[in-house]
Amino acid sequence: MRRKDRSIPHAEAIELLQKAEVGYLSLAVDNTPYVVPLNFVVMDNNIYFHAATTGRKLDMLDQNPKCCFLVSSLDGIKAGTDACDFGAFFKSAIVEGTARRVTDVNEMITSLNKLTEKHNPAGHSFREVTPEQAKSVAVIAISIDSICGKARKQ
Amino acid sequence: MRRKDRSIPHAEAIELLQKAEVGYLSLAVDNTPYVVPLNFVVMDNNIYFHAATTGRKLDMLDQNPKCCFLVSSLDGIKAGTDACDFGAFFKSAIVEGTARRVTDVNEMITSLNKLTEKHNPAGHSFREVTPEQAKSVAVIAISIDSICGKARKQ
Repeated sequence: MRRKDRSIPHAEAIELLQKAEVGYLSLAVDNTPYVVPLNFVVMDNNIYFHAATTGRKLDMLDQNPKCCFLVSSLDGIKAGTDACDFGAFFKSAIVEGTARRVTDVNEMITSLNKLTEKHNPAGHSFREVTPEQAKSVAVIAISIDSICGKARKQ
Repeated sequence: MRRKDRSIPHAEAIELLQKAEVGYLSLAVDNTPYVVPLNFVVMDNNIYFHAATTGRKLDMLDQNPKCCFLVSSLDGIKAGTDACDFGAFFKSAIVEGTARRVTDVNEMITSLNKLTEKHNPAGHSFREVTPEQAKSVAVIAISIDSICGKARKQ
């Protein structure tokens, strides 16, 4: 990180990651980058998400499991007298990780239920995932190899 | 795109890109992906942003100018009776492009002023960028080679 003065503690970066509703998954094959938005949940040092059983994400992950995963919020723009005094109050956490397809049905069910709970509106109840439902999607776990948090505060 | 039923027209994808406050720039070197959030402005089929004159983004772009650039919004979650009936109303545009460092001072000034105007609060006025100020940052233009828009509407 170039601007060390904007670094945030590890625990804050993890909290930012855990609480974010959307994350941005970046993949690369043949040095061609790709990025998609995702809903996800963090469990035991892994980022879990699900996908259709075919598609570009899975094709790329099968060829290269290296991932970069970003969560970010923009908490306003500071306007200035000069154009170059403008600034953006970004807060972000960037994860470098390695993806694997989850094949254990219990792990699939647990992570899919946690993902649903995370996005479940207050007061709403839902029927948990069955083994058959779990097996109808692809579940991916990204191990968090490193995380780097950053915030501009002024 | 796998889900052709979620494709949006080209003009809508361009509009989504133009109006987004934040975009997510994905880069790759040695098949290691990276993604960062950015403020940007679209002019003449280019995405413009600025950066410090040194740093990871520029290092990577110098090694590989291929970019993927995402804008995305999540307009709510659909809850269901079953966990697997949940859905996310994402709207997104994904650009594949090629980056170049802008060296023409007029192009630098024009794009930096447009970028400032885009994020300028209503009623606020600012002093435009001088040649010296423009030369103190790096300005990058990503040519939009393709754009693909997608929205889940139900």
